Amino acid sequence: MNKVSVVGVGMTAFGKHEVPLKTLLLEACFEALKDANFPRIDAVYIGNFMSGSLCNQEILGAIVANELGLGTVPAFKVEGACASGGIAFRQGYLAVKNGEYENVLIAGVEKMKHTTTEETTKAINAAMDNDSNEKVAGLTFPGFFGTVANRYFYETGATKEHLAMVALKNREYAMNNPKAQFRSPTTIEEIMSARMITDPLGLFDCSPTTDGAAAVVLSKGENGVVVRASAQATGITQMQEMEDLLSLPAVRESASQAYEIAGLGPEDIDVVELHDCFSMTEILAIEELGFFEKGTGWKAVEQGLTKHGGKIPVNTSGGLLSKGHPIGATGLAQIIQIVSQLRGNSCNQVEGAKIGLAQNLGGTGAYSVVHILEGVS
Amino acid sequence: MNKVSVVGVGMTAFGKHEVPLKTLLLEACFEALKDANFPRIDAVYIGNFMSGSLCNQEILGAIVANELGLGTVPAFKVEGACASGGIAFRQGYLAVKNGEYENVLIAGVEKMKHTTTEETTKAINAAMDNDSNEKVAGLTFPGFFGTVANRYFYETGATKEHLAMVALKNREYAMNNPKAQFRSPTTIEEIMSARMITDPLGLFDCSPTTDGAAAVVLSKGENGVVVRASAQATGITQMQEMEDLLSLPAVRESASQAYEIAGLGPEDIDVVELHDCFSMTEILAIEELGFFEKGTGWKAVEQGLTKHGGKIPVNTSGGLLSKGHPIGATGLAQIIQIVSQLRGNSCNQVEGAKIGLAQNLGGTGAYSVVHILEGVS
Repeated sequence: MNKVSVVGVGMTAFGKHEVPLKTLLLEACFEALKDANFPRIDAVYIGNFMSGSLCNQEILGAIVANELGLGTVPAFKVEGACASGGIAFRQGYLAVKNGEYENVLIAGVEKMKHTTTEETTKAINAAMDNDSNEKVAGLTFPGFFGTVANRYFYETGATKEHLAMVALKNREYAMNNPKAQFRSPTTIEEIMSARMITDPLGLFDCSPTTDGAAAVVLSKGENGVVVRASAQATGITQMQEMEDLLSLPAVRESASQAYEIAGLGPEDIDVVELHDCFSMTEILAIEELGFFEKGTGWKAVEQGLTKHGGKIPVNTSGGLLSKGHPIGATGLAQIIQIVSQLRGNSCNQVEGAKIGLAQNLGGTGAYSVVHILEGVS
Repeated sequence: MNKVSVVGVGMTAFGKHEVPLKTLLLEACFEALKDANFPRIDAVYIGNFMSGSLCNQEILGAIVANELGLGTVPAFKVEGACASGGIAFRQGYLAVKNGEYENVLIAGVEKMKHTTTEETTKAINAAMDNDSNEKVAGLTFPGFFGTVANRYFYETGATKEHLAMVALKNREYAMNNPKAQFRSPTTIEEIMSARMITDPLGLFDCSPTTDGAAAVVLSKGENGVVVRASAQATGITQMQEMEDLLSLPAVRESASQAYEIAGLGPEDIDVVELHDCFSMTEILAIEELGFFEKGTGWKAVEQGLTKHGGKIPVNTSGGLLSKGHPIGATGLAQIIQIVSQLRGNSCNQVEGAKIGLAQNLGGTGAYSVVHILEGVS
């Protein structure tokens, strides 16, 4: 079993881009290869959710290999809804860990802002099971997580203001991230009074549509930020089968496995990037990842425990909510933020951060993948 | 490095189905699990090309894990255009070979016949690079391989009748395959005079649109048909970059690697399933796989060398041309036909077959994956 390190990272700005999906993808890949000092690449893994539907473009792995002159190396695309990037990273990691390859390029990309809201919403809804009550009833993703939020309020006493605190924190972090989609300052009042998307989620509670790409190079050995653990789990794909709307079993299971593999616990983690597709989802995730007891995440947010100086700084990149959420790229952008934190050159640097965790969710809880990384001292 | 065996196979009939994509997928998976005597499954790999575009359904891995009660096992979808199924098989194989898992379920599926020809054609064209001359010029896949066929005729002296001989052979094999899409008898004359799709390819020279699914279970050890080699290569994604229209470098490279891994050559192979998306492609593939010299495949066909009693029986399932081509399922259906041949219970059984090869192509040559399998004696 080999040690595996992140030796290169690359990322486009997140936001709206006029250039094609391919250009974004190649920009991120080239930057990662350059950062890694152009090693010989043995395989390419691409995380992407809906380039077929929205850009009429698949075969992204072969395109990267061709355009970057990587030769005849094996390549393919990984789809796991919004967890596509994290799962692609895991596949590349496993291949290097198990000795199949020495250096691999893993990239994620999505281009979503050139189409209509109707087209994008339909394409995103492919991440729900067609037989699920929520899809049959016409719920979109905001509708699903809005329902979850109302139930969370009912069971715990949390309010819409706690969601707003999450959104505000992530915006404040994004203001220092030059690659983030939303960097203008805001206030709790503006967030609370913003246009309603689906009760109780307003505009700032929902991650945006975003164009962007992110890439990393993984190599055998301990010559960079080391991957200490990788774990992936499948959750429930239909609302009618969920025992508890406020649980994300895939997150809990993937985190539990990752902690066990690393021989670490939540108390050992210095910085986290997690999947805040909605402000509500961040609160559930800090509970399922073991940082706070179930049903108490909102109190931790209120007490500032998920910020610098608190128990665990969460989404120092700005998160999906303000950094942006180009679906296939998200899992890799999370890894890149953790790598930057562990290299000590991040925006919103957490002083002395040694161990970081990235958690990427797909669907309404269908997939979760967790990686734990450690910086070199 | 573990030995890896195919211990279970399952497959729907190929053709037109009224049931949803999910039902097809689950039918094939259940049959494969039953054939394997229901081992504990550690991970799920799905090969699929365009369920997002045509069925608004992704997260197929999680759906399989949920519906078949496989628990929280890792799962994801692999996209590699028409090679999606073969690449998914390879990922599952590598994971078991490298000791990551003991038993994995790999399935492929596509549902294509419920949409319009226009929608399907557009979705398939996502397997071309948007920057390629052929796509910009408005060529579809038949247009591309029709161009290749005309060039092949020009360079070698082959004629449309040689293409017809391939189509006839595969139809005659399909007549004995109860799961094949087209089983009615035909003649060279009918094939030659059939409706032109794109000069010189007529209706029988083109693989059809098909609904269907196929699945296999792979396990650690030598307790079934053993996977002797797996190799994948990337080819050229743009016609304007191809040095030679009559080469499929990805096929040649993946075959060469697979032979080397297995310590075998083309002369050791007893039976082959290869990617006859068009009759022309079968002729190129028998050359690139090393069975016949470059430029001579058409003569081998004329001499009956790709049939029972010839040098190497090719596509005894009926091939993509007559068995059908549900894109994501195709690579696994090829594996299943080889497994049946090596188990000795196949349609069009090749007597005494011990070693089989399966070759799955993606795009206009973007991906090729080759597997060599060996039967237990």
